[in-house]
Amino acid sequence: MKTNLPLDADRLWADVMALADITDPVRPYTRRSFTALFLEGRAWLAQRFAEAGLVTRIDTAGNLIGRIEGNNPELGVIAIGSHSDTVPSGGRFDGIAGVATGLEIVRALRQSGARLDHTIEIIDFLAEEPSEYGLSCVGSRGMTGSLDGKMLDLTEPGGETLRDALRRVGGNPDRLIEAKRNDISAFLELHIEQGIVLESRSLDVGVVTSIVGIRRIEIVFQGEADHAGTTPMALRHDALAAAANTVAAVRRVAEQLAAEGENYFVATVGILTVEPSASNIVPGRCRLVIDARTTNPELTARFVGTIDLESAAHAAAAKVTRPKFETLSDGPPVACDPDLRAALRQGAHDLGLGEMDLPSGAGHDAAFMSRIAPSAMVFVPCRKGKSHAPEEWADREAIAAGAAVIYQAVRALDQSLQRSRGGEAA
Amino acid sequence: MKTNLPLDADRLWADVMALADITDPVRPYTRRSFTALFLEGRAWLAQRFAEAGLVTRIDTAGNLIGRIEGNNPELGVIAIGSHSDTVPSGGRFDGIAGVATGLEIVRALRQSGARLDHTIEIIDFLAEEPSEYGLSCVGSRGMTGSLDGKMLDLTEPGGETLRDALRRVGGNPDRLIEAKRNDISAFLELHIEQGIVLESRSLDVGVVTSIVGIRRIEIVFQGEADHAGTTPMALRHDALAAAANTVAAVRRVAEQLAAEGENYFVATVGILTVEPSASNIVPGRCRLVIDARTTNPELTARFVGTIDLESAAHAAAAKVTRPKFETLSDGPPVACDPDLRAALRQGAHDLGLGEMDLPSGAGHDAAFMSRIAPSAMVFVPCRKGKSHAPEEWADREAIAAGAAVIYQAVRALDQSLQRSRGGEAA
Repeated sequence: MKTNLPLDADRLWADVMALADITDPVRPYTRRSFTALFLEGRAWLAQRFAEAGLVTRIDTAGNLIGRIEGNNPELGVIAIGSHSDTVPSGGRFDGIAGVATGLEIVRALRQSGARLDHTIEIIDFLAEEPSEYGLSCVGSRGMTGSLDGKMLDLTEPGGETLRDALRRVGGNPDRLIEAKRNDISAFLELHIEQGIVLESRSLDVGVVTSIVGIRRIEIVFQGEADHAGTTPMALRHDALAAAANTVAAVRRVAEQLAAEGENYFVATVGILTVEPSASNIVPGRCRLVIDARTTNPELTARFVGTIDLESAAHAAAAKVTRPKFETLSDGPPVACDPDLRAALRQGAHDLGLGEMDLPSGAGHDAAFMSRIAPSAMVFVPCRKGKSHAPEEWADREAIAAGAAVIYQAVRALDQSLQRSRGGEAA
Repeated sequence: MKTNLPLDADRLWADVMALADITDPVRPYTRRSFTALFLEGRAWLAQRFAEAGLVTRIDTAGNLIGRIEGNNPELGVIAIGSHSDTVPSGGRFDGIAGVATGLEIVRALRQSGARLDHTIEIIDFLAEEPSEYGLSCVGSRGMTGSLDGKMLDLTEPGGETLRDALRRVGGNPDRLIEAKRNDISAFLELHIEQGIVLESRSLDVGVVTSIVGIRRIEIVFQGEADHAGTTPMALRHDALAAAANTVAAVRRVAEQLAAEGENYFVATVGILTVEPSASNIVPGRCRLVIDARTTNPELTARFVGTIDLESAAHAAAAKVTRPKFETLSDGPPVACDPDLRAALRQGAHDLGLGEMDLPSGAGHDAAFMSRIAPSAMVFVPCRKGKSHAPEEWADREAIAAGAAVIYQAVRALDQSLQRSRGGEAA
C-alpha cells in the first residue's frame, strides 16, 4: 500500500472514531435513524461540514447535505456520500466511513488550493439501514423520487408514521418533490466491503461492478394458541411448526441456487417472531421476514415461487393458515456506471494501489442514486468480512486508500465530465 | 345436570366475572403475577374473603389465605384453592374459578348454619403461571418447601430478582420456612379441564387421577451475526438454521412418543427468540424453551435423550455451537390421593352428576401440594378445550356443579378424616 496519499489518514480516522463514539452505551455501536443519538451524530457532522467550509442544509427527504460551489454552476454536482445511521449493535464503519471520506476529500481539496469546476456535495443519506418503520434507504429513495405515500404511511411499533418521523428530523414529507435531483453529474460512495474477498486477496480497493437486487418477503402463519399441556399432538395448530419448516426450506433452496454458481444468490430469515411466546402455550402466530439477494432477478423469481409453494404446504401440514405472503420491497440489481468505474480504477493505478472488480452483496444508497445519476462505489477491506456487528473493523490505512482513490477520481472527473458534456453538446 | 345445588351458582359466577374484569384492557384477559393489576385483583379478593367471614393474611411465600377456624383445632386444615394470576392474553377461568369456588363454599357453609370441625382455608397461590422470572407455581412451591435460593435469584428482563418481587407483593423471602405447612389434612382444587374430554362425553365433572410431570429444557445456539447480503451461504454460522431444525425434531419425536399410546405425552416449543432480529443480519443467537409433559417419566427421558443428540447434530450442521442445553425445571408426575378422589366421586353421585376419572395434562398447584398433604382435583368442562386464550369459556352451571362436588366432599371429609385419624391413633 502506498502511504504518501493526497489526504490526511489520521484526520479521516479521527472523524470515523468520533462519530462511532456517539453510540448507545449499552449496546455499541448503535445510532438508529430517527433517534436522539442519530440527531446528535448529525449535529456533530454538520459542525464538521461547516468547519470544512461547506454550506449545510437538510433536504425535504431528511438528507444532511454539505455543499461547496464550483467555478461553473452549469456543470452540476459531483456528490460523495453514504449514511451515518447503524443497525442495532452494529459497527463503527458501515456508512460512517463513506460520509467521513467525503468530508476529508473536501478538506484535502481545500488544502491543495484547488477549486473545482464542479460543485461538490457531501451527503449523509437518511436511514439507509432498515428502520423501525420497516424501510431502508429512506433518504436516497427520497432524493431519487422513489419514496411514495404508502411508504410514508408505514409505522414503527410505537405507532408513529414515517411521515411524522421525517418531519421530526428536519425533512418535509409534503414537499418531497423538492428533494428529487436532476443536477447530479456523478455520485461516488466509499463503503467497507462487508465480505472477505479483498482481505483474502490482499487488495487495497474493490471497484463495484453491480449492486445486488434485494427482495424482502413477509410471511405470517396463523394457528391456535392452545394449552401446551392439554392439547394432544394430533389436535394442534402450531404456527411455529410451519415457520420452522419454512426456515429450513429457505436455507435449502438458497444453497441450491447459490451452488448453481453462475450468479450471486443468498437468502436469509433474520426475523422470526412467535406469539404469544410462553413456554406453556402452543404458538398461535408466527411472522418471518426473508431477505433474498442476487445479481440475477431470475433466480429470485425461482426462489420466491418455490418458497411460496413450500410454505403453503408446511402451513397445511401443521393445520394452520398463511394469511400473509407479501413482498415488502423489491429492488432490482443495479450496474455501476462504466465511466466512473474507469475513473476509480485509474485513480487506484495512479496511487499504486491494488484493485479488483467485484459485485456488492449488500444494498447501498448508490443503488438508488443510479436512478438519477451515473454512480459507482469503492469498497475497502474489512477484517474477516464482519459487519453489522461490534467487531466490524477496517484499518486506518485501508479507509484512507479508498478515500484517496475517490479523491483522484473526483479530480479527474471534474475535467473529463466537462469534455463528455461538451461532446454531447457537439 | 342437577340444578338444585347446595350453593349459589349466580354469586359464584359474579365473582369469576368481576375478577376477570380486572385485566389489562389492551390485551384481555391479562393479570400477570407481581403486577399492579395482580395486586388490584388480590385486594378485591381479600375484600370478598373478609365479607365471607374469613380471616385473611399473606404468608411469607406470597400466598393470599383466608381462614375460618373449625371446632377442633387439632384436626388441621381442609384447604381449597387455585390461583388468580393469568398468562398473557389468557382467559377468565383458569385459576380464578378455583379460588372463587373456595370462597363460595365458605359462604354456602355459613348460610347452611354448619360449622365444621376442620378449619377451612381458601388459598390464592402466588404466580401459578410461568412468571416473568421464568418460574411457575411460586406460591405452592413456597408452601411445600420447594422454593430454593437459586429460584429466588431468578430475574425478570428488567433485572428484578424473584426475591425482591416476592417481598414487593407481601411475602418474605428471608422467612420462607414459615410458609411451609404440616397442618393440612386435605387439599382440593377445582380447575377448568383445558381439554376436550369432558365436553366430548357430555360429563359434568372429571376426577383427576394424576397430574403430568413437566420438564422444561432451554437450548441456546450461538452462531455469528454476519451480513445477510455479503456472507455466502457456505460461510454462514446461522443460529436459526439449527434452531428451526430442532423445532421440527421436537414435533416429530413428540408425535412418535404420543403415538405409542400407552401414556400421555406432549412436547412444545413455545418460546423461540432470534438475535439480533434484523432482516439483513444472519441470526447470531437463538434461544428456545421446550415444554415436555407425560404421565410416565421414562418417555421424557427418551425424548430428552433424542433431542439432545439431534440438536447437537443440527448445531454442527449449521456450524454453530450449542452453549446451553439445560433443564430449567423437572416436576415428576403426581398421583392424586385415593381417599379424596373417592370422596369427590361420591359427591358427584350424591348430586346426580356425571363424572369420570381422567389425567391432567396441565400442571397445577395441587401437584406441589401433594408433597405435604393428600390432594385431589375436580375438572369442569371448558368449551372446545380452549384455555390460555381470551376465548376460554366454562358455563356458569358447569363451574357451580364442580364447586358443589367439592362442597359435598368437604362436608364428608370433615367427618371421614376424623375417623381415619382416630384409626391411625389406634
